[in-house]
Amino acid sequence: MGLIGGSLAWGVKRRELAREVVGVDRDPASLRYAIEAGMIDAAMGLEAAVRGADLVVLAVPVGALAGLADELAPWLDPEAVVTDVGSVKLPVVERVGSVIHRFVGGHPMAGGEQSGAAAAVPDLFDGTQCLLTPTAQTDPKALEAVERLWKGLGASVVRMDAARHDEIVAAVSHLPHLAAYALVSAVAAADPTGAARAVAAGGFREMTRIAASSPEMWRDICLMNRDPLLGMLDRYADAVRRLRDLVGRGDGAGLLDEFTRARSVHRGLHEGPG
Amino acid sequence: MGLIGGSLAWGVKRRELAREVVGVDRDPASLRYAIEAGMIDAAMGLEAAVRGADLVVLAVPVGALAGLADELAPWLDPEAVVTDVGSVKLPVVERVGSVIHRFVGGHPMAGGEQSGAAAAVPDLFDGTQCLLTPTAQTDPKALEAVERLWKGLGASVVRMDAARHDEIVAAVSHLPHLAAYALVSAVAAADPTGAARAVAAGGFREMTRIAASSPEMWRDICLMNRDPLLGMLDRYADAVRRLRDLVGRGDGAGLLDEFTRARSVHRGLHEGPG
Repeated sequence: MGLIGGSLAWGVKRRELAREVVGVDRDPASLRYAIEAGMIDAAMGLEAAVRGADLVVLAVPVGALAGLADELAPWLDPEAVVTDVGSVKLPVVERVGSVIHRFVGGHPMAGGEQSGAAAAVPDLFDGTQCLLTPTAQTDPKALEAVERLWKGLGASVVRMDAARHDEIVAAVSHLPHLAAYALVSAVAAADPTGAARAVAAGGFREMTRIAASSPEMWRDICLMNRDPLLGMLDRYADAVRRLRDLVGRGDGAGLLDEFTRARSVHRGLHEGPG
Repeated sequence: MGLIGGSLAWGVKRRELAREVVGVDRDPASLRYAIEAGMIDAAMGLEAAVRGADLVVLAVPVGALAGLADELAPWLDPEAVVTDVGSVKLPVVERVGSVIHRFVGGHPMAGGEQSGAAAAVPDLFDGTQCLLTPTAQTDPKALEAVERLWKGLGASVVRMDAARHDEIVAAVSHLPHLAAYALVSAVAAADPTGAARAVAAGGFREMTRIAASSPEMWRDICLMNRDPLLGMLDRYADAVRRLRDLVGRGDGAGLLDEFTRARSVHRGLHEGPG
């Protein structure tokens, strides 16, 4: 019943995509909030919720997925479909897929730096993309059921290989987050009293907004997407060093070239391949 | 008559802060646009505009300030006050201050990745901060005149030492811009076809929005704020390397610690010192 699970449950209920929506959370306050807000029909313990469910969505930090899958696997109906919403997919589809036959890896490209049931909204996924990462072993009917869920919530679904998914998100999501964390850290070290940050706080705050995200979530992502992320961090360190050397040498032509190329890449995003 | 100069002229006219507002630009189309939009009362050549002016605002890229100051200094009235809007201040107040006696360095904290007269708006500075960097030689009356200008446009004015200004903007503005350029460059190198950027283009585009800024402006800033920026780039490279090593070692406790500290710094921005 966090931001993603709560929003998903609420959207399913609002759009009447299921007969009954049951919420599970270790935190009783979140469950009470979800009931009162009308996000779910009922709150239950894990076993009661899983037994008899047609579709189970695991909306927990990626580091907690394996343990949760092991715990609930014995209670699943034989036909039950299970999916997740984690930001890393290859280790998840391998590990969770090995204990739950009808598992489909999923990653809705929605959310933000907020978290918790209180941040949930029923239309969070409307107009967004959801990446699904079926494997050669994935049951086609399970994949269809999960696709129906996301399309029903207003998202467009893109199927891709799990390893490719992890490389893509390392580049366009995980690296930018770590770059923002490094920025906050470097500026805080240079400005122990906060006086510099107070000047122009607005712009700096905007650029480092993602540093407000859940530290636990980002720890798990870094640990689970280690190799693709390391590759991107090495490329990034090279790019920072190249700019540093151009500034150090006072190489105006080289800097102009770098900035002009970056602008054309940025502009290309507006009409990039679909 | 670019984003900053045009917005400033337009704001002065709207708020009736001057008897007459005269625009100068090398580009005749920008001047026509400024006249038609009502941003200025008249368009003139540099000499005609400067002769008889009470206040001259140099709104050109920082790399062009020295040449412009040399050119217009002979035409200035003895009592005329001159100010600028550049993002780097120590080399500017030293160099321009040496040829124009009543010069006051200024830096409005406004603008963005857009540029040109067409992007100008009369209220650009309303509610923003303008940093002024008087020196021991600055005429107090000139400083007051420039302060009145910015306050009249709705900005709050902060006076600070020019060297300190340059360190602060290296940290909270110039470094974040270079970090975004490096991000675009690293992701483009890892994703030559643009397929990765097409997935989740929205989030990535948002994070790299500042890479759309004027390459010439950022080249000049890097060249003129070289030493403070080099210091920040070195700190930043260290922070990136530290995160890279934590990811490489799979050090979950270390990552959690980094991310938790960054979140508390980020949150501190909301109630930081004034």
